[in-house]
Amino acid sequence: MYTLLKKTGKVRRGRFETVHGTIETPVFMNVGTLAAIKGAVSSMDLKEINCQVELSNTYHLSLRPGDDVVKKLGGLHKFMNWDRPILTDSGGFQVFSLAEIRKIKEEGVYFNSHIDGRKIFMGPEESMKIQSNLASTIAMAFDECVENPSPREYVERSVERTTRWLVRCKEELDRLNSLPDTINKKQMLFGINQGGVYDDIRIEHAKTIAKMDLDGYAIGGLAVGETHEEMYRIIDAVVPHLPQDKPIYLMGVGTPSNILEAVSRGVDFFDCVLPARNGRHGHVFTKHGKINLRNEKFELDASPIDEGCQCPTCKHYSRAYIRHLFKAKEMLAMRLCVLHNLYFYNTLMEDIRNAIDADCFEEFKNEKLKAWAGKA
Amino acid sequence: MYTLLKKTGKVRRGRFETVHGTIETPVFMNVGTLAAIKGAVSSMDLKEINCQVELSNTYHLSLRPGDDVVKKLGGLHKFMNWDRPILTDSGGFQVFSLAEIRKIKEEGVYFNSHIDGRKIFMGPEESMKIQSNLASTIAMAFDECVENPSPREYVERSVERTTRWLVRCKEELDRLNSLPDTINKKQMLFGINQGGVYDDIRIEHAKTIAKMDLDGYAIGGLAVGETHEEMYRIIDAVVPHLPQDKPIYLMGVGTPSNILEAVSRGVDFFDCVLPARNGRHGHVFTKHGKINLRNEKFELDASPIDEGCQCPTCKHYSRAYIRHLFKAKEMLAMRLCVLHNLYFYNTLMEDIRNAIDADCFEEFKNEKLKAWAGKA
Repeated sequence: MYTLLKKTGKVRRGRFETVHGTIETPVFMNVGTLAAIKGAVSSMDLKEINCQVELSNTYHLSLRPGDDVVKKLGGLHKFMNWDRPILTDSGGFQVFSLAEIRKIKEEGVYFNSHIDGRKIFMGPEESMKIQSNLASTIAMAFDECVENPSPREYVERSVERTTRWLVRCKEELDRLNSLPDTINKKQMLFGINQGGVYDDIRIEHAKTIAKMDLDGYAIGGLAVGETHEEMYRIIDAVVPHLPQDKPIYLMGVGTPSNILEAVSRGVDFFDCVLPARNGRHGHVFTKHGKINLRNEKFELDASPIDEGCQCPTCKHYSRAYIRHLFKAKEMLAMRLCVLHNLYFYNTLMEDIRNAIDADCFEEFKNEKLKAWAGKA
Repeated sequence: MYTLLKKTGKVRRGRFETVHGTIETPVFMNVGTLAAIKGAVSSMDLKEINCQVELSNTYHLSLRPGDDVVKKLGGLHKFMNWDRPILTDSGGFQVFSLAEIRKIKEEGVYFNSHIDGRKIFMGPEESMKIQSNLASTIAMAFDECVENPSPREYVERSVERTTRWLVRCKEELDRLNSLPDTINKKQMLFGINQGGVYDDIRIEHAKTIAKMDLDGYAIGGLAVGETHEEMYRIIDAVVPHLPQDKPIYLMGVGTPSNILEAVSRGVDFFDCVLPARNGRHGHVFTKHGKINLRNEKFELDASPIDEGCQCPTCKHYSRAYIRHLFKAKEMLAMRLCVLHNLYFYNTLMEDIRNAIDADCFEEFKNEKLKAWAGKA
């Protein structure tokens, strides 16, 4: 259940209660595609870097180890030893971004596995079944994510089908939640707004799904080809038409600056692979913007990545040491940078929440954007 | 300074005082070749898995990041943030095992870098200089490590040269320790016994170096081609001729069974890449011997790697989860297994020390060897 604690202009400070504990919003979810964060980061580490919500991928887990295996082992929480909330995506985005050959029909999508090429079918019911087996806290509706730009006519038909799929998702998850051997009988469902870069289609779709009394609402299909300006315009257009007593989740976004801009437009939930992926390449966030630790100028730099940062990396290791680890191809390099970047994101969200509480989000945002100087 | 706390038959229980703290022996040193343990294990993790001594490689660190860089950053301890003892090898073993082209002369060895092929010279003075720059707790003498078997005549000449090199190492390290800008002015030197599989050459060499009043004595050139029986025979032959008031270090050995056998023959120090390397491949040690976590039979195994084990991995994760991580090629798989295996080794040494203290090492050893059933 979502409680809007405070609203200043469009900026929302909320609290979301789940069977796996409370989520303070705005929140950034830490992505662990295959029930593990890339970069040798464990669920124990996630606690140390103040992660509130872990996000795993339905499509990937259905292939490896298989959702039946996860169910037999007691669900994702037990499997990866994480007792806080988990959100699973629907697999929709992966089907559209990873599968080379796919055929979209009314019943769902026929495609080939990106691992061994074998034919797979996934529709709303299959996605709900897998997510119910995984027993995540929040399941995402199965949708079609179209690239930007796509022809208007295609987007219109796609969104209509996504709405029909959402109805089927809700019915199926209600049914699954009522079955005796379902692990998490209180699994929640978030619907996903689509419509490409067409404001009117987006708004129409938002109004339609808003009537469905879902547990939360996501804005999908952004950060897939459009400009930042288009993205912000669409958020501005859509947010007012989503229920204000439910959390709003901007999927797959983004840079620290993107997050500040989206929070200022009323978004509560975020997720992105960017901090972990950047970290694995030595790109780390600091209060003065992003730096590349592989750069030679850090060879003798005994200071931490970000002065004053309380993450496990900055408390113990220098830029020079981590640069050496990258040059020496030691896995520890990636781990230390991923830990730092995720801590940076989780702490940014905490600072955002504190700024909202203290009625100074706007100043906070402007200060940060200025300090990062376009480098975050 | 080494204190022999107890001796039962040949078995020694000791304590070795260093400027970086006390080492309880017998001890296993955890190998971090490039100032990091392979498998994304940090110096903070080493404390959590009860590592007493970290071991780094002189040759590797001289190439990356360069011992001059480490010195400018305050030495290895500061560089990798580890305040307990560090032993550095001399680089001799790496020169002989990694370099494809090498020429051994009286002054030292001419060889090509395994990274970029450039010509390098390393002799006793160069090795001491590098180790002094790294500022490890214990420096190892620069020696020639011959493969087994090698012709008797070659081994004889090699050992004589290694003795002359040892004299030069001691002189040079004494000189370096007296310089004002040396970081660790109390750096210790261990000499290395060589002689291939020729007992008489080994014994003669042991007697010669025993007279040199070094801080400790290593048995080198084993686990490089000879059988376990030959190795045990040579330890039996050499140990009585090394000073009994100094620690005895068996280099690069070995399996848990090898360690028990060597402890029973009077060895105090061990090091080996085996636990970390095995871990990275999913081979993990248990009280019933080694198992391969990649095996399909662990797909649904919710138990920890080793029931009752208090390592960070066994306290939190199941065999099924770690097997999944290996199949999914997640780096976390390697990290969790390396942590477990190093904890297993460090705990084995603690159990050995406790058994010696309780006068039951022989029973302990026999029980372990029986329980492992040849699989450790």
